[in-house]
Amino acid sequence: MACCRGCFCCQCCCREGETRTPEELTILGELRDEEDEILPRKDYESLDYDRCINEPYVEVLEGLDNKKARKYEAVRWVMVFVIGVTVGLLGLFVDFFVHLFTKIKFSVVADSIEKCTDRGCLSLSLLELLTFNMLFVFIASLLVLIEPVAAGSGIPEIKSYLNGVKIPGIVRLRTFLCKAAGVLFSVAGGLFVGKEGPMIHSGAIVGAGLPQFQSITFRRIKFDFPYFRSDRDKRDFVSAGAAAGVAAAFGAPIGGTLFSLEEGSSFWNQALTWKVLFCSMSATFTLNFFRSGINFNKWGSFQLPGLLNFGEFKCSDGDKKCHLWTAVDLGFFVLMGVVGGLLGALFNCMNKCLAKYRMRHIHPKARFIRVLESLLVAMVTTLVIFLASVLLGECRDLSSPTTHNSTVSGSEDINSTIRQFFCSNKSYNDMATLLFNPQEAAIHQLFHQDGTFSPATLSIFFLLYFLLACWTYGVSVPSGLFVPSLLCGAAFGRLVANILKVELGLHIYSGTFALIGAAAFLGGVVRMTISLTVILIESTNEITYGLPIMITLMVAKWTGDFFNKGIYDIHIQLKGVPLLEWETEVEMDKLTASDIMEPNLTYVYPHTRVQSLVSILRTTVYHAFPVVTENRQNERDFMKGNILISNNIRFKKSNIVSRAAEQRRRCQSMKSYPSSELRNVCDDQSAAAEPAEEGEDLLQQMLERRHAPYPNLYPDQSPSEEWTLEERFRPLTFHGLILRSQLVNLLIRGVCYSENQSSAAQPRLSFTEMTEDYPRYPDIHEVDLALLNPRMIVDVTPYMNSCPYAVSPNTRISQVFNLFRTMGLRHLPVVNAVGEIVGIITRHNLTHEFLVAKLRQHYITI
Amino acid sequence: MACCRGCFCCQCCCREGETRTPEELTILGELRDEEDEILPRKDYESLDYDRCINEPYVEVLEGLDNKKARKYEAVRWVMVFVIGVTVGLLGLFVDFFVHLFTKIKFSVVADSIEKCTDRGCLSLSLLELLTFNMLFVFIASLLVLIEPVAAGSGIPEIKSYLNGVKIPGIVRLRTFLCKAAGVLFSVAGGLFVGKEGPMIHSGAIVGAGLPQFQSITFRRIKFDFPYFRSDRDKRDFVSAGAAAGVAAAFGAPIGGTLFSLEEGSSFWNQALTWKVLFCSMSATFTLNFFRSGINFNKWGSFQLPGLLNFGEFKCSDGDKKCHLWTAVDLGFFVLMGVVGGLLGALFNCMNKCLAKYRMRHIHPKARFIRVLESLLVAMVTTLVIFLASVLLGECRDLSSPTTHNSTVSGSEDINSTIRQFFCSNKSYNDMATLLFNPQEAAIHQLFHQDGTFSPATLSIFFLLYFLLACWTYGVSVPSGLFVPSLLCGAAFGRLVANILKVELGLHIYSGTFALIGAAAFLGGVVRMTISLTVILIESTNEITYGLPIMITLMVAKWTGDFFNKGIYDIHIQLKGVPLLEWETEVEMDKLTASDIMEPNLTYVYPHTRVQSLVSILRTTVYHAFPVVTENRQNERDFMKGNILISNNIRFKKSNIVSRAAEQRRRCQSMKSYPSSELRNVCDDQSAAAEPAEEGEDLLQQMLERRHAPYPNLYPDQSPSEEWTLEERFRPLTFHGLILRSQLVNLLIRGVCYSENQSSAAQPRLSFTEMTEDYPRYPDIHEVDLALLNPRMIVDVTPYMNSCPYAVSPNTRISQVFNLFRTMGLRHLPVVNAVGEIVGIITRHNLTHEFLVAKLRQHYITI
Repeated sequence: MACCRGCFCCQCCCREGETRTPEELTILGELRDEEDEILPRKDYESLDYDRCINEPYVEVLEGLDNKKARKYEAVRWVMVFVIGVTVGLLGLFVDFFVHLFTKIKFSVVADSIEKCTDRGCLSLSLLELLTFNMLFVFIASLLVLIEPVAAGSGIPEIKSYLNGVKIPGIVRLRTFLCKAAGVLFSVAGGLFVGKEGPMIHSGAIVGAGLPQFQSITFRRIKFDFPYFRSDRDKRDFVSAGAAAGVAAAFGAPIGGTLFSLEEGSSFWNQALTWKVLFCSMSATFTLNFFRSGINFNKWGSFQLPGLLNFGEFKCSDGDKKCHLWTAVDLGFFVLMGVVGGLLGALFNCMNKCLAKYRMRHIHPKARFIRVLESLLVAMVTTLVIFLASVLLGECRDLSSPTTHNSTVSGSEDINSTIRQFFCSNKSYNDMATLLFNPQEAAIHQLFHQDGTFSPATLSIFFLLYFLLACWTYGVSVPSGLFVPSLLCGAAFGRLVANILKVELGLHIYSGTFALIGAAAFLGGVVRMTISLTVILIESTNEITYGLPIMITLMVAKWTGDFFNKGIYDIHIQLKGVPLLEWETEVEMDKLTASDIMEPNLTYVYPHTRVQSLVSILRTTVYHAFPVVTENRQNERDFMKGNILISNNIRFKKSNIVSRAAEQRRRCQSMKSYPSSELRNVCDDQSAAAEPAEEGEDLLQQMLERRHAPYPNLYPDQSPSEEWTLEERFRPLTFHGLILRSQLVNLLIRGVCYSENQSSAAQPRLSFTEMTEDYPRYPDIHEVDLALLNPRMIVDVTPYMNSCPYAVSPNTRISQVFNLFRTMGLRHLPVVNAVGEIVGIITRHNLTHEFLVAKLRQHYITI
Repeated sequence: MACCRGCFCCQCCCREGETRTPEELTILGELRDEEDEILPRKDYESLDYDRCINEPYVEVLEGLDNKKARKYEAVRWVMVFVIGVTVGLLGLFVDFFVHLFTKIKFSVVADSIEKCTDRGCLSLSLLELLTFNMLFVFIASLLVLIEPVAAGSGIPEIKSYLNGVKIPGIVRLRTFLCKAAGVLFSVAGGLFVGKEGPMIHSGAIVGAGLPQFQSITFRRIKFDFPYFRSDRDKRDFVSAGAAAGVAAAFGAPIGGTLFSLEEGSSFWNQALTWKVLFCSMSATFTLNFFRSGINFNKWGSFQLPGLLNFGEFKCSDGDKKCHLWTAVDLGFFVLMGVVGGLLGALFNCMNKCLAKYRMRHIHPKARFIRVLESLLVAMVTTLVIFLASVLLGECRDLSSPTTHNSTVSGSEDINSTIRQFFCSNKSYNDMATLLFNPQEAAIHQLFHQDGTFSPATLSIFFLLYFLLACWTYGVSVPSGLFVPSLLCGAAFGRLVANILKVELGLHIYSGTFALIGAAAFLGGVVRMTISLTVILIESTNEITYGLPIMITLMVAKWTGDFFNKGIYDIHIQLKGVPLLEWETEVEMDKLTASDIMEPNLTYVYPHTRVQSLVSILRTTVYHAFPVVTENRQNERDFMKGNILISNNIRFKKSNIVSRAAEQRRRCQSMKSYPSSELRNVCDDQSAAAEPAEEGEDLLQQMLERRHAPYPNLYPDQSPSEEWTLEERFRPLTFHGLILRSQLVNLLIRGVCYSENQSSAAQPRLSFTEMTEDYPRYPDIHEVDLALLNPRMIVDVTPYMNSCPYAVSPNTRISQVFNLFRTMGLRHLPVVNAVGEIVGIITRHNLTHEFLVAKLRQHYITI
């Protein structure tokens, strides 16, 4: 039946339409091509950001005073600092080797070209370039073969992780090694990819890995410091690591913090923000410190911002009329935003088709096919670079570039990156200048070189880059998208500037237009908002660009959203990750919790036999089980029955806190209070408190009296799939949730008592024992059943989460969604007005696709 | 009894110790001076950020499609833009008049001094200055008399508001007028106050007021657009307005956004962040646009950052050895952070004593005493400024200031603010240069003028400023604290730089040290973290200062926190505002929800007589009442009784959603689904669904059978204070919460039915009618009882919040706190495992003082 429901949902979701409202779809009866949409896969689990408060945890808590808490806090700060420094060093490492390889490659090839220009052996130069590039790309591709998750930019994966989805292998050491080494070779291999995305992913892995003090890949790394081995802490450190990655890549510590905030905001807390910012700062300044030292031999100064910086935008001192931008320019920026959004949507659409094609025709085949694809892309890219430079470049006068921009604080002087291929001594090849340089240098050229590129060159460059970058993103090498998008957009912006300046004779600053073009295109592709604004502001180090960048990004996002999602969201969707959006649509509030919950539950009793637990665990796939007691009428009779049943009933009674008991307890505690004044207060109350006890007794009586006989026999075992419906829908008082991993752990460690013992005889597990196997708990199928005595009884109550957040069945979706997302929950029980569990809500019940399907169903039934 | 409990809490809290742990206090039996600590006052209400989902709301919801939702969203964006522009214009207005008044004042006085230097009529100049200053301060003080809330910086109030506390009058139009006009005169009056805090407060009021489309001060302003008249929307707009205030004051749009985020983070959502950033940007650039146009006649350019900017920190081009800062300097920065923290703690401590003195001896007296105090402060300040300039200034050589800093992008050329009082032609008076200028100019001098101030001058200046600023903050004029703190700290930093440079001969950049000194002192006083870091980075427009500023602020905060709280928190505490911190201490997790809840509740039944409601409303002060039904055993008998009782019982039964009913409903809805495929799925289920109906019937039977006879008579009226304890503790099934304001509203609008009608005959209120009186709902004592028929019955169920978030009694405090703060709740019911309400938690049960008291009690009883 659960399967049926699954299928049903599946079918609903397949028909999901993006542009039409559910009503329209219902009326039209429209059926979409089923293979067109990829549904959220059910096998992705949620991370659990909520603390499970059970007895082992409380034990830890009792031993924890403020002093110890401060110690852990201090360790956290140290870890955050170490993560920052490590990410900074990682950035340094990647940057150094990319630089080195690129330098060797270009100097060898450039020499060869210069020689061959006269001798006519250009094919030899091409061959050299091809050899270099294909070798590098081959290495990068091999590394990805070892760990397929290392392919791509990694931002979709980190976004999913911060959103609360567990993707296997995403934060492992092996992934880190393959990604960090892979991106180095794929960038050096001349592919149109950036190193920013992979840097962010690597940073996140550093954040996830370092505070664990153990490794699965290298089993010998294992320290005894288990305090951060929980989803909650791990995700906090991943936020910090990802932020540090952004900070190192762009020199944007605030932008990095906001990136983590934007992607993981649902699980955010303030103390963490401060740590994340510190981590980002550490990364930025570690990188600066070493780069200033190594590149300029100025140890101790911090002159260089991040790996990618845009240089200084500045009017020449003499030019009094010069403005970086004016109010009139804003109009053009809006238009550029629209165009950027359109181009970005086109890019995303093409890339989506390509990715689907790859999923259908390349991924199912042998793995080496992917390597061949990478090599093909490398070859085509190299040919394009070479041929475009040779055939399409224009020779332009060297005197035209004004030199007032020579104080650029970037790594190289801007004029040193000019290429003279095939041109006379006083002129240079503009296409070669853009293509025969590292991408960062090309960005600098477009931002700061005045009037050096012909419109034709810019158009061709834009087109080539657009197509090749689109093809490259998705090939199985580590590949970022930021730099290619920026370069592509900058060419577009520069083209606009050229037209406005030369054709219309407007007095504008070309660099600003190139920057805005870059922002527009990047915004159109990735659709990030706050964080991207801040990252770009920080990269330009010019606060006055805030407004134009923000407006451009906003317009680009809105325009693009009209057609499709951002590239990262597209890839997340293609992977079938059940991502939760920021909030639900207003319309969804027509549904309530009971409309979307999963009503078929498998539950356990507080005291259950081993055999029942094993059968439940082996026949279901749920990750959590509600712990319930039945609302039986004849409990008093059953109390005389066997120990299992009476234990369950006793647990239920002891667990129902009443106001009368509460009040009595308080007054007693007040009596023992040392202050004489307080004792007086309490004496006043004690007279009143006597009837309270009576009330308590009445309550007790009522609890017992309430139960009239009920025909069924009390089952000796827990409910299972074979139950009849009547049994399945018996009212069940909800007491807590227990996770599959916890149950398996209890079974493995033999936590149970025999029928002739009391439940107090059950061995107790400590917090360390409960969390020892994090994050990969053993499977029930690995448990040796011969070691278990099936008649033994397990008391799960000390280990269950006895007070998870819960909602009533009438709660509106927006409220449910808000609670679930903000608190980072994994399971949300739906409990009715008399405390009976009626269903459970997980991440899959809140995905957009599921909600749309349910809403459609809602419209049909009303 | 409720009163008793209140007293009890009170006494507990009074003994609250800040530095000792509860255990120690208990052991020592230490009693603190009771008048030393001010307790959170019970009369501050919470704002309600949670949506109340009742029938009128659902009605609105049903009428709301995505198109309409988009329309409201668009209106929101427009409002946010309008708020930004308004705040920007407000900044312009304040800046313009402060500038104008200060200019007139200083030019008149400076002329007079220059003339009098020879003629010896300096007392005349002093008199002129005195007249100006005291007149301005008198006006400012009068304005505060009109609206006392307008005194001070306003940041404590805004912080409280964003934290979720409703402070009367804080966001009213009258407050806005007094604050905006008052700050203008208090700054122009030469007091050592800034205009930044009042700007933020004014911005917040603009945010709160504009989207309401009505005013209480001016009743004629009233438009028919009620959609933003709720606590939730209002608080969102206040966040935006406050951020815009920061943005306009410091030219720091990102810092402003983070300020709102830091203070109001508990109620944050992502869509809002984006709007807040947009609002900040609008404010910054509106201000820039007009200032560039007015001050420089460069309309259309955006050359000037915010009102306070720090100029450009830059090494001269020739000096290759110059660094803004190096790794070695970081060590000094840390030390300066420590000193800044100490100085800040001293400042806060002195100001706290002063504020307490004022509360005890000045505030109870006639209001004009406050005006006299303001005038006294103004007089002393004027005398100090004048005398220090005349007697303590040193004449220094004019040639020494290097001119490479002349390209400062600030408002005036730095050399034009040099004062030559009493000095020869080629020299100038360094003390007068600092004191006879607007404070912003003095900050520029300290940051950018090389080697112009003697160590003696700096020390004296620091001391004077420290003492006077401390005295001034708290006087009843609108007064910010940012600029005086910055100036004070800059003098301290400059002093350190002078010593290091001249005495130790280190090669450092003085401006950086002045900046770090300013950051250290400001950080020590206000203890803000992330937002202050970003504000300072943005004000310097130099991203490379990120790390030193952050480290300094961090060290200053930690040092200061060792002694006392930040100045804003101190003033919040003195006001008795029940502020909730970011999170609870770890130790508090030893308590559970049942330890801290209020167990004495006054509740109403779903169907209640008017007379009961009136008596409940008149005899209690609670703001919310749980709606409950009793768990009676003999309901079937009572069903035959009067209409009131049977209505209540019927409501209870209809309201208990069971899984069986849910399952049946679903299957039926599936049957009517149009797709043939789905019908098949459902046919499979229909066989299984039959027993489900049986199960449902069984449930119904059980529900009815469960109830054995119970001796008491069913009361005809709702529970009230006169109830016996036994009645009070009867188990009560919780169905929802209804607010006092809602009940009064129902009574006033005659929403009730008579005994011989069905409850369906009750008039229905629309959403507009329910929220018409927001935010000042009528009091029960204003209701004319003669108009009410006491025997009529009110059905409250359509208007209650039927699914508020609730917690179980065993929930740990951290979890309760997290839910309460993150969701911005006002009332949090505590519901036990069988759905009975056992208590309620409000903001007051979660304040630090209350928790500490409860924890102490916990230690005693165990």
